[in-house]
Amino acid sequence: MTENVKQAIQDEYPEDFAWCYGCGRMNKEGHHFRTGWDGEETVTYYQPESEHTAIPGFVYGGLIASLIDCHGTGSASLALHRKNGFEPGSGEEPPRFVTASLHVDFKKPTPQDTVLKAVGRVEEIHPKKFKVAVEVFAGDAVCATGEVVAVVMPASFAK
Amino acid sequence: MTENVKQAIQDEYPEDFAWCYGCGRMNKEGHHFRTGWDGEETVTYYQPESEHTAIPGFVYGGLIASLIDCHGTGSASLALHRKNGFEPGSGEEPPRFVTASLHVDFKKPTPQDTVLKAVGRVEEIHPKKFKVAVEVFAGDAVCATGEVVAVVMPASFAK
Repeated sequence: MTENVKQAIQDEYPEDFAWCYGCGRMNKEGHHFRTGWDGEETVTYYQPESEHTAIPGFVYGGLIASLIDCHGTGSASLALHRKNGFEPGSGEEPPRFVTASLHVDFKKPTPQDTVLKAVGRVEEIHPKKFKVAVEVFAGDAVCATGEVVAVVMPASFAK
Repeated sequence: MTENVKQAIQDEYPEDFAWCYGCGRMNKEGHHFRTGWDGEETVTYYQPESEHTAIPGFVYGGLIASLIDCHGTGSASLALHRKNGFEPGSGEEPPRFVTASLHVDFKKPTPQDTVLKAVGRVEEIHPKKFKVAVEVFAGDAVCATGEVVAVVMPASFAK
């Protein structure tokens, strides 16, 4: 499987905010998670590296938590960007979010050799605060579910 | 600050279960989190690497989630080991846990240049299920709090 996101919100973050270890395109060591729309849902694909093990053959939970975290902030950014009238690729700078809280329920061991697919449903709970419900699939199996509360990045971060 | 854990539970996991990207001593690419007792609390120290950024100068949330996750399973292992009459260093093989759920509340931006200290308080909620409340400090500031529910690793993992 070589699923791919064509228009990812992270491709359009300003360079100063593109250094996230999870989803920053400028961070050479990072995971480069890329999040886009799939209809009304959001999606991120990721093939874990061989070192991302919990026990041999299964994916490290912290990597799954990282995927859910960045998928959540990316999904919130997509949703507010759409609310503002824009889609990735439009050339408008998207809003940037930070994570207020992250919850993960690990449902079953996640196989190492499979592309993971995070699927999100975004709900606005305040004009600057979005909740994203996430399911992480390995093939047809939901291996983890999660919830991210993301808030618009405070101006104080942008010094 | 060069705080260190002298007797870590992860030092005594059997080799087959020491490959965790977060806390496995055999995983050359991993974080090598090490968790030990500090009185009745548990503690893990970690200096984030330069690439573990959220935005430049601040630590990536997924790294903090990973620290809380492994600190939680390590703390649960310490607690059940102690209940069974053993301390790290005794030579007895400790019980191994997996994460059922992970919750993180990000309280404030976490500075990149400071050793992080995760502190845990462990509560048994079932003979095979432990809840660990975690605070992550950078210096004197609590940057994140979390909760891990950890369960004894099912025998089916040990094939």
